[in-house]
Amino acid sequence: MEIGQLLSSRTRYMSASEIRELLRWATVDVISFGGGMPDPSTFPVEDIAKIVSYVLEAYPHKALQYGPTEGIYELRQEIAKFSETRGIKAQAENIIITVGSQEALELLGRVFINPGDVVITENPTYLAALQAWRVYEPRLVGIPMDENGMAVEILEERVKQLKAEGARIKFIYTIPTAQNPTGLTMSQDRRKYLLEVAERYDLLVVEDDPYSYFLFEPIQVSPIKALDKTDRVIYLSTASKIFAPGLRLGWVIASEEVVRWFNLAKQSLNLNTSNLVQYIFLEGLRRNVVLKNLPNVRDLYKRKRDAMLAALETYMPHGVSWTRPSGGMFIWVTAPPQIDTKELLKVAVTQYKVAFVPGHGFFVDQSVRNAMRLNFTYPTFEQINEGIRRLALALRGA
Amino acid sequence: MEIGQLLSSRTRYMSASEIRELLRWATVDVISFGGGMPDPSTFPVEDIAKIVSYVLEAYPHKALQYGPTEGIYELRQEIAKFSETRGIKAQAENIIITVGSQEALELLGRVFINPGDVVITENPTYLAALQAWRVYEPRLVGIPMDENGMAVEILEERVKQLKAEGARIKFIYTIPTAQNPTGLTMSQDRRKYLLEVAERYDLLVVEDDPYSYFLFEPIQVSPIKALDKTDRVIYLSTASKIFAPGLRLGWVIASEEVVRWFNLAKQSLNLNTSNLVQYIFLEGLRRNVVLKNLPNVRDLYKRKRDAMLAALETYMPHGVSWTRPSGGMFIWVTAPPQIDTKELLKVAVTQYKVAFVPGHGFFVDQSVRNAMRLNFTYPTFEQINEGIRRLALALRGA
Repeated sequence: MEIGQLLSSRTRYMSASEIRELLRWATVDVISFGGGMPDPSTFPVEDIAKIVSYVLEAYPHKALQYGPTEGIYELRQEIAKFSETRGIKAQAENIIITVGSQEALELLGRVFINPGDVVITENPTYLAALQAWRVYEPRLVGIPMDENGMAVEILEERVKQLKAEGARIKFIYTIPTAQNPTGLTMSQDRRKYLLEVAERYDLLVVEDDPYSYFLFEPIQVSPIKALDKTDRVIYLSTASKIFAPGLRLGWVIASEEVVRWFNLAKQSLNLNTSNLVQYIFLEGLRRNVVLKNLPNVRDLYKRKRDAMLAALETYMPHGVSWTRPSGGMFIWVTAPPQIDTKELLKVAVTQYKVAFVPGHGFFVDQSVRNAMRLNFTYPTFEQINEGIRRLALALRGA
Repeated sequence: MEIGQLLSSRTRYMSASEIRELLRWATVDVISFGGGMPDPSTFPVEDIAKIVSYVLEAYPHKALQYGPTEGIYELRQEIAKFSETRGIKAQAENIIITVGSQEALELLGRVFINPGDVVITENPTYLAALQAWRVYEPRLVGIPMDENGMAVEILEERVKQLKAEGARIKFIYTIPTAQNPTGLTMSQDRRKYLLEVAERYDLLVVEDDPYSYFLFEPIQVSPIKALDKTDRVIYLSTASKIFAPGLRLGWVIASEEVVRWFNLAKQSLNLNTSNLVQYIFLEGLRRNVVLKNLPNVRDLYKRKRDAMLAALETYMPHGVSWTRPSGGMFIWVTAPPQIDTKELLKVAVTQYKVAFVPGHGFFVDQSVRNAMRLNFTYPTFEQINEGIRRLALALRGA
């Protein structure tokens, strides 16, 4: 039977994620800096085992049953408390539980984006966010970054222009802390400025915050959501990096109205996030597993970052530059301009046995072709050193 | 901040599911026949507790890590084997794991439906399927049913007409066994006939099959997918009714090409279904927990159905009729034509303390207003008797 003729027109925007394709290679003899996986040694396995026993003993009928679309009330309360430690004031009613942060990205597209609507992002930004929204046909506008994050003055100029053109701006998307893919962190001043711009032009801000527990430097920043007095920030976070990605549990903190729309949209997507998984994370928060483990994990990742920076310093040829990430999971490498990293990847994987994510897909217009993203959390220290050595050889050979 | 002006136009198709709203009432003193929840006493709690201990001991780093979008390979293999017992021939490559069957419904809409495309369903059909697709703006065409399921002769007539009009038919959606909401089962002859129609007009068939393990009568039917020689049946099923809905785990069996498209679409929705949950169900299948428990569950549900049928017989006034479901979880009740069950519901809940799902939403055109769906699996025997007594009073008072 011929499927091609039956496909919806939006399937033309669905393309295989390079990151996901790369995950497949992680099993073979290739050293992979692709993906964005935590180091599995950081998973609180014993705590989770104890927690599951308790959950199945204490409230098995709730944990194994259907639940409300927005998530279990106690978990939403507990996340509100957890967020308070970072200065975010929220009630359970401001929170919806999602199947990872990825589902929150989908909900944003679904609830807000009509074809031609403007979405403003850092450029580069998280590839899978762009991918999630493309089926809704937004006009993506990228704002350049420097070591202090999104260039907010340029943002304001662009917003002014766009408004003058009559463009419908739906939201500004930012990963202000330890950004994916660059590892850079937006300064506190810029956070305030960004929020001022949003207020001045009455715009929504989406703050995607998976990494702020992994700042390796003593940078003083607060979540933009913590500065938000006018309920215009939609804040996303996830258990994937601070607990375990195998749960697929994320959350959104926003105004009750936004939560209500996300709730309606989520009903059709999957009814609700696994109750069992929600109870596991609830107990994880109650027992302080997350905050207890964080210092060790942060220290491990800092050392891995440092190992990768040192290896880059040691092996990379002249003309290659990279960011010094203040936190998170990635280093962003820029090769000499004549190198196309998509081409390089083929050679790197087949001949040099090392993988990375080419930078193209992180740009709203795929305009930059000589960049790549390297993950330093998943590989071992040995793999980091050896992999960077191989990557340098591949670059020298290119 | 004003959200209304920022919403996408598709939000107009997002309305609160009456079923989900009803789930909220289940906690108070109202006896609820709404929802479609299994009896929690059927959850294999001890088996699951043992399984989780084992999973976290045997492969914690896989269970708590990210995984491939299509699902864990071993689980896909095990589901292929499990399906073979019902005559379905499939390889792991034909299977994708979803966040409940609800996600599969979303994937169908996303991958296949353009505005105006025709989707053919039984009328009435599963409310949440209609809801999932409405954002994609299909033209829904409903085919009436009788005690032998969808009237396939009428289906053929309608397909012929639609083709003559030049309509783009995307798929025929059926719940052939113990249908939601009617509880009726399509005869084997009709299954063959339906597949012949699909072959003659080169159409896809979507077979949604959550209930076929809960047939209470010795009806000899095979899944339509088991009869499919031309790879045109997309088969959906779920662990929710045979294991536990709290996992949120479903699956699709289809051609490799369809699985590939669903895989691409799912990446943006949530990257992958929880690995932990997948490993739990994998072990559940390997240890035969599902098939071991089924006879008891089936027996319990049969007795609950019989209790509800007996109560209907005892209490219902003249002019009220109902289906005698061959399996599944629901009885479909038709009130006298002057009664609007949406209106009735308000009175039933507030004055008589009993809830149900009004039938309107199960029809593609909301044309029938005097029907309702009653769930008999979740309430206790006592609640079944008392709830039907109350419902009869409400109907007499209406």
